[in-house]
Amino acid sequence: MNSSKSTNLENFFAVIPAGGVGSRLWPLSRASAPKFLHDLTGSGQTLLQDTWDRLQPIAAGKTMVVTGNVHAHAVEQQLPELDEKNLILEPSPRDSTAAIALAAAVLALRQPNVIIGSFAADHVILDQDEFHKSVIEAVDVAATGKIVTIGLRPTEPSVGFGYIQKGERLDSPTACAVLKFVEKPSIKVAKQYVDSGDYFWNAGMFIAPAKLLLEVLAKTEPELHAGIVEIAKAWDTPARESVMKSQWPKLKRIAIDYAIAEPAAEQGLVAVIPAEFEWHDVGDFAAIAELQSQGKKGNLAVLGSAKVLSDSSSGILVSDTNRLIALIGLEDVIVVDTPDALLITTKEHAQKVKSLVDVLKQTGHSELL
Amino acid sequence: MNSSKSTNLENFFAVIPAGGVGSRLWPLSRASAPKFLHDLTGSGQTLLQDTWDRLQPIAAGKTMVVTGNVHAHAVEQQLPELDEKNLILEPSPRDSTAAIALAAAVLALRQPNVIIGSFAADHVILDQDEFHKSVIEAVDVAATGKIVTIGLRPTEPSVGFGYIQKGERLDSPTACAVLKFVEKPSIKVAKQYVDSGDYFWNAGMFIAPAKLLLEVLAKTEPELHAGIVEIAKAWDTPARESVMKSQWPKLKRIAIDYAIAEPAAEQGLVAVIPAEFEWHDVGDFAAIAELQSQGKKGNLAVLGSAKVLSDSSSGILVSDTNRLIALIGLEDVIVVDTPDALLITTKEHAQKVKSLVDVLKQTGHSELL
Repeated sequence: MNSSKSTNLENFFAVIPAGGVGSRLWPLSRASAPKFLHDLTGSGQTLLQDTWDRLQPIAAGKTMVVTGNVHAHAVEQQLPELDEKNLILEPSPRDSTAAIALAAAVLALRQPNVIIGSFAADHVILDQDEFHKSVIEAVDVAATGKIVTIGLRPTEPSVGFGYIQKGERLDSPTACAVLKFVEKPSIKVAKQYVDSGDYFWNAGMFIAPAKLLLEVLAKTEPELHAGIVEIAKAWDTPARESVMKSQWPKLKRIAIDYAIAEPAAEQGLVAVIPAEFEWHDVGDFAAIAELQSQGKKGNLAVLGSAKVLSDSSSGILVSDTNRLIALIGLEDVIVVDTPDALLITTKEHAQKVKSLVDVLKQTGHSELL
Repeated sequence: MNSSKSTNLENFFAVIPAGGVGSRLWPLSRASAPKFLHDLTGSGQTLLQDTWDRLQPIAAGKTMVVTGNVHAHAVEQQLPELDEKNLILEPSPRDSTAAIALAAAVLALRQPNVIIGSFAADHVILDQDEFHKSVIEAVDVAATGKIVTIGLRPTEPSVGFGYIQKGERLDSPTACAVLKFVEKPSIKVAKQYVDSGDYFWNAGMFIAPAKLLLEVLAKTEPELHAGIVEIAKAWDTPARESVMKSQWPKLKRIAIDYAIAEPAAEQGLVAVIPAEFEWHDVGDFAAIAELQSQGKKGNLAVLGSAKVLSDSSSGILVSDTNRLIALIGLEDVIVVDTPDALLITTKEHAQKVKSLVDVLKQTGHSELL
């Protein structure tokens, strides 16, 4: 591989799909204020802002955000450096393929040889230098005509993630071919994956020439592709709004894993860069507590504006009210205090928050979702 | 004993001292809205209203309330039948002797042979008929020149109550002489008391001729007695306000147990009626949970206006907000949700709420007390 890194990086454009409610983070995360709009790490910034900042050293002025219409104001407030022309607003959620493919198509019309990298707005990545190293290598590999994903080394046999099976080494410092993507496995299978050393967690980070992504999509989902191309053509013209209005609602809802990543892997088009950085999807409050306590047991992590009085309680307390919260003698507790809803559970039950949100849906409490 | 019950009861006048904050019930109970102003049983009425209603069958139109100036409005709202002339408002708290002795002195001037009965505003009594029976017998015994207390049969060796040691039987269906009052004992001593069968819990219910109470007080605390007498003389005159203003702040703060009950017992002036009714002082949230669940384990008791979603949690939830409160997988939890403060603990730690209130005092959070 002889391409110069700097040349390839010049063609790089980051895309941040900012969607997903994060039901397991209710009542903090809501349809109107999803996970990515919150500070879940105590960094003083939201996950979206952290994601933006993380990309600036390798994609300054070249970062696009795709999010829902309803979040336009919050996103603009949180990202004052975001150029309006790099903000795609979705009138309704159409899953990840529509979001990323539209970004790819719009960017490819502006710059035909663009290599896009898609990074979720609500993940936590520690060690920024290693992240940049991985993305830069991914961009170089992508420039050879690959769809490149960054694979996370599993730290446990999680059944909450999809996995990536690596194949042979490629002519690149760390990249390997990808044999296949596999969906969330059983715990037994997950253990085999972890033990084998051949599998990575799939965190949905994809780096690829925009044109290649669209070519794959044209074959796997021709109608969706056609709709995207039509919108993209109108995007930088006065026709944007009317075409968006007519085409967007018809787009098929499908995850990029099914529409692009898996079929491309079958064609030998996908590579993986093993990540050397620490990554967290902060999917539930137990994960946030874990991240906050940095392995220290018996700590109470506090996020938000609450005044807290705690008598040796441990766990996590998240608040966006100004109330005084007093805890006495609680272990591994999760308390999430918002103006109209209060959640109290324990780390052990953190995953059950999703079912609770389902119950709220079924019982007509939509004002709380 | 030959006195007719009806004649003695004619002379009976009930007094409800409504004071005490109930620190162990923070943040529900506050200086501005103490325990007796809350519905802690789910009866739909406050403890004060329950106490009032309980007394009406034996003291209709003859019930006096002694409370703090700051609670005047709330008490009048909650007790529309309370005659203004039977409401004594204290400019500042001066403990139970001043409160009860002033009521006794005011009533004795209106009706010299009055027998008063003092009943705390914040206790729970089940079985009203047995309560009435005990009080009626107490009034009859009081008419013979005794200070009569109603003793609760201990259901456990509690260290949270003072005890009453009974002596010989008196000429009355159930009354006994009282040998002595003892302060809150150690657990070891409390066990001996319970095992002996000779001790009752002291719930501060005293029934006695008003004049007898004042005679005892004149000997034990002559200055306090003189101040009370001076206020009482002015009470039903235009001078009330000025005399109250000059005398009340000088009154000694002392509990009626020390100023009257214990010295009277030493003189052989006190009798006890063993109560045959169930009594609770609902001193902390664990006690309220116990009362609510009526012994059923694994229940979640809910008091107040909260919308609750619970996934098999047990304990007690008290709310005076309209928030949705979701509980998942919590055992014996105590949740108290108020607009400006939230308490979360477990039944096991219910007594520690008092220390927490002390911390709030020390750290200058007086607005939350």
